[in-house]
Amino acid sequence: MPTYTAPLREYAFLLEHVLDYSGAVASLPGYEDATPVLVDAVLNEGARLAEKELAPLNRSGDEEACVWENGQVRTPKGFKGAYALYRDSGWPALTASQKYGGQGLPHVVGLILREMVCAANMAFGTYAGLSQGAINAITAHGSEDLKQRFLPPLIDGRWTGTMCLTEPHCGSDLGLLKTRAEPAGDGSYRVTGTKIFVTGGEHDLSENIVHLVLARLPDAPAGIKGISLFAVPKSLQAQDKTWSVRNLVECSGIEHKMGIRASATASLVFDGATGWLIGEPNRGMKAMFTMMNTARLGVSVQAVALAEAALQCARTYALERRQGRGMGAAAVASPVPIISHADVRRNLLVGKSFVDGARALWLWAGIQLDRQHKHPDLAVRSECEDFLALLTPVLKAFFSDRSFQATNAAVQVFGGHGYIRETGVEQFVRDGRIIPLYEGTNGIQALDLVSRKITLNEGRTVASFFALVKEEISGMSELRPEFARELQTSLENLRSATDFIRAGAEADPHLNGAAGHDYLQLFGLVAMGFAWAKIVRAALSLGEGGDQKLASEKLKVANFFFTRVLPEAEHFSRTVKTGSGPLMAFVEDEF
Amino acid sequence: MPTYTAPLREYAFLLEHVLDYSGAVASLPGYEDATPVLVDAVLNEGARLAEKELAPLNRSGDEEACVWENGQVRTPKGFKGAYALYRDSGWPALTASQKYGGQGLPHVVGLILREMVCAANMAFGTYAGLSQGAINAITAHGSEDLKQRFLPPLIDGRWTGTMCLTEPHCGSDLGLLKTRAEPAGDGSYRVTGTKIFVTGGEHDLSENIVHLVLARLPDAPAGIKGISLFAVPKSLQAQDKTWSVRNLVECSGIEHKMGIRASATASLVFDGATGWLIGEPNRGMKAMFTMMNTARLGVSVQAVALAEAALQCARTYALERRQGRGMGAAAVASPVPIISHADVRRNLLVGKSFVDGARALWLWAGIQLDRQHKHPDLAVRSECEDFLALLTPVLKAFFSDRSFQATNAAVQVFGGHGYIRETGVEQFVRDGRIIPLYEGTNGIQALDLVSRKITLNEGRTVASFFALVKEEISGMSELRPEFARELQTSLENLRSATDFIRAGAEADPHLNGAAGHDYLQLFGLVAMGFAWAKIVRAALSLGEGGDQKLASEKLKVANFFFTRVLPEAEHFSRTVKTGSGPLMAFVEDEF
Repeated sequence: MPTYTAPLREYAFLLEHVLDYSGAVASLPGYEDATPVLVDAVLNEGARLAEKELAPLNRSGDEEACVWENGQVRTPKGFKGAYALYRDSGWPALTASQKYGGQGLPHVVGLILREMVCAANMAFGTYAGLSQGAINAITAHGSEDLKQRFLPPLIDGRWTGTMCLTEPHCGSDLGLLKTRAEPAGDGSYRVTGTKIFVTGGEHDLSENIVHLVLARLPDAPAGIKGISLFAVPKSLQAQDKTWSVRNLVECSGIEHKMGIRASATASLVFDGATGWLIGEPNRGMKAMFTMMNTARLGVSVQAVALAEAALQCARTYALERRQGRGMGAAAVASPVPIISHADVRRNLLVGKSFVDGARALWLWAGIQLDRQHKHPDLAVRSECEDFLALLTPVLKAFFSDRSFQATNAAVQVFGGHGYIRETGVEQFVRDGRIIPLYEGTNGIQALDLVSRKITLNEGRTVASFFALVKEEISGMSELRPEFARELQTSLENLRSATDFIRAGAEADPHLNGAAGHDYLQLFGLVAMGFAWAKIVRAALSLGEGGDQKLASEKLKVANFFFTRVLPEAEHFSRTVKTGSGPLMAFVEDEF
Repeated sequence: MPTYTAPLREYAFLLEHVLDYSGAVASLPGYEDATPVLVDAVLNEGARLAEKELAPLNRSGDEEACVWENGQVRTPKGFKGAYALYRDSGWPALTASQKYGGQGLPHVVGLILREMVCAANMAFGTYAGLSQGAINAITAHGSEDLKQRFLPPLIDGRWTGTMCLTEPHCGSDLGLLKTRAEPAGDGSYRVTGTKIFVTGGEHDLSENIVHLVLARLPDAPAGIKGISLFAVPKSLQAQDKTWSVRNLVECSGIEHKMGIRASATASLVFDGATGWLIGEPNRGMKAMFTMMNTARLGVSVQAVALAEAALQCARTYALERRQGRGMGAAAVASPVPIISHADVRRNLLVGKSFVDGARALWLWAGIQLDRQHKHPDLAVRSECEDFLALLTPVLKAFFSDRSFQATNAAVQVFGGHGYIRETGVEQFVRDGRIIPLYEGTNGIQALDLVSRKITLNEGRTVASFFALVKEEISGMSELRPEFARELQTSLENLRSATDFIRAGAEADPHLNGAAGHDYLQLFGLVAMGFAWAKIVRAALSLGEGGDQKLASEKLKVANFFFTRVLPEAEHFSRTVKTGSGPLMAFVEDEF
């Protein structure tokens, strides 16, 4: 069975040496107390939770799965206890506003906790993750009254939250949604409709569940512009102030899924359930996107988490399992650990070059999130917000695709043993397969990137990001000229692909859809190059007192990335330019 | 739930127009009766079996899985009846020698049946596939006495066969195996040892099971050169000639797997079990490779089968599911089938460009197999054998990788619904994940290709294959110059990569392992280009009386292949040449 060791050494190196946490985050007003020493202590506690409490429940949770019975959902054995511990240790409050009982720590710290939790037990992590989204949406858009009532129990973890978007007939196209909300006259609304794919929509972990539900008001315009957001608790407040009256929402079943089987994916029937409007009428999509963007950044972190967990498994196995002799001069009589074989190393490095680079990149993005919220200079805030908007679809889609590649490479290290459930490594493949699908499919992310994000601020945001990449190239050009050259070529290819799409999209309405996937892959590779350049510079500047072993390791992984991974950018830069013809020439029955 | 429709139109087009079945196979001595008309009738029957009997058991088989109890294995509900029908209809006998009760039809026809069976129900297909391997190995290497006793019941399907290679401590490295066989003095042997991962090693479908077991004779040399092959039946013959005496082999359990859950993967304990030598002492690997090579070609067919089945699901869903509006001039008020969206088309074409090209390629390989066995000219036989030897690792590894990509692309078409077991499409991902792992991991295939196959006959075989590709390029160069140019570039890249590896392997013992994976991908892309060139030429020469709709479709898929898939060859041609440095520079604890 897989064990998990939180990569605390990695977080420390990245925060301290690669991303200047002290200067970039701990110096922001409100984060003065979040010193590196405090963060280190918090992460040590989080590591203990993940390693000792959550990881041991990962396999059994998958085997047992959630069970639905008469509208109730039972989580697998041990989950209730683990959640109670998680709650009592104050983890749900980590980054929430102090005004409502939170600890007010930086978001980037919350995201590191998320990585550890999901690496240890992704299904468990989904419950916590959705609550975080609900907290963020209510904090950003809720009325003061709503905040007073809903935030404290969400933040102390007695309650959890959900996000209710999808209906049986509508997923990617939310404009089609039918759930309706009618004003009750007392400031509340009666919500009626059916929602599916609600993560944590029903379970036995918390006292109450706040559903954040997209629905239409009676006079709402058709389509996406007529959607509002409501908070609909599973239980309502009784006369005695306890939340003990069942609301008119029922769980009609849960899905049987390929993976994250310990995460309850519920169908909910709202039948005149009482709810309260969050934010303004018909502006629900805006409020939902506050939640969704955090959620998308969160799922990119999940993608890294699963790849890390699978890599740890594969590394352990590759050091233990003995097959074959050494090669050439290293040949010996008795079998060697398979980590000696070049192709096994290649599989491990597919994982490691992804995990190390992607972690640096999402940490960088997490820091932008904190700076967006806390930086005193409004121009900086707004720039951070725009960078995040640009990178969110890239991180979500590119990371989920590459994480899936990494978990599969880990299975490959095990040979036939990787296919056996008992070994545990195949679970990471199944659990991770959801990531390219949920929180907006990767196809939707690609469309978002090419149709909205690269044109943001008339293209100034993407140009600013390219300038940041260029800076990293310059910073690396004397240290590692061959890496710098490769990244420079890739960046030029990305620029040119960007121009191609912006120039062609008006004349060809299908270009965005046709080129989006490959463009996003190209963008993702360059963004990873940006992160790797930062790592290379940091590793080389560690100095004599620094961890030379770590520096040596990072430079070798960087070499793999720049010579065997990044060159794929060239391929995507070519295919982007094939346009929509090869796809749209087909009539429907020719597929 | 997925339904399956056998692609009979595709087989007919490929056999008749692309691969000249009549000239290449039906004209061989011994196959005179296997006319296109007969083959067509056989395939129609096979399609009925797959569609009506096997496909309906695919989902339930996965849900129920095999159950082990006290040494017995129970297959899921319906499997026994389906196997009885399969047996009684004479399918196990299809390609077997007429001398022992077979129908003596061409192997390529047997492989088409295999594709249909596995597309409908891969788990069911594994039982049938392994029997075929056992028949082939005994036919090629068994004594006449062994053939007389074992072939008739295997061929009429009363018995099934297995392949027992792996032991707990050895998989890829068979030289380590410990199972031993001691002569009993009466011409038989006593076999003792533990085998794992035995597909169909125990079940309730047939009266008896013949295990083909690799074991060591008492005086055998160490390593791979001291391995012999034995036939060890589950039940032995009693005085009354019935096979009713239990042999000393026990099933100690079955594996719980990620997929093909209705296929019993058994652990077998041989405790002085009675068996008979197949072929010569210490030449077991040679005999096993007869079986293994057929098996590897068989699993490439499985890879295509799963991609076809998943593609059919995704296509149906994409035509039914409505989300979003059309683009540009085609924009309408009500939601359109998602097949209108460019990125959905891309996902479908990832599948279709693989399935159509790969099917043409394996059919071509299957035809080489028949010509190897039946062609009157020994030189032609030997050339066919060499081409097969060269292409077998490419087909096994490249097809299994790309099939996995295709089944995942099919899931992506479904969005979140693809993750739900009920939809059925995720099963193809889980079932297909075994293919890169079994019958020699894809890493082993890559090593085989670069260290043994490209040097076969001092490199003359690979040169002859390149000449065949070159011929197809010439044949296409006036018809579709842009396709021809792309294939020419890829072929040149492959040639150059081949020279690089052959030149460098001696000085760098790790080069083969380091470059093998990417070289195999490059080779696979060029081989697919070879197949697509044949399809393009056939589609263009269909003439006015031909199926113009099919021709138009194939040319459009070809366009996707040559513009968006084949260009990846360029990438691999670069990475092959990075050598082993980026992998071997690591010390073991740096991963």
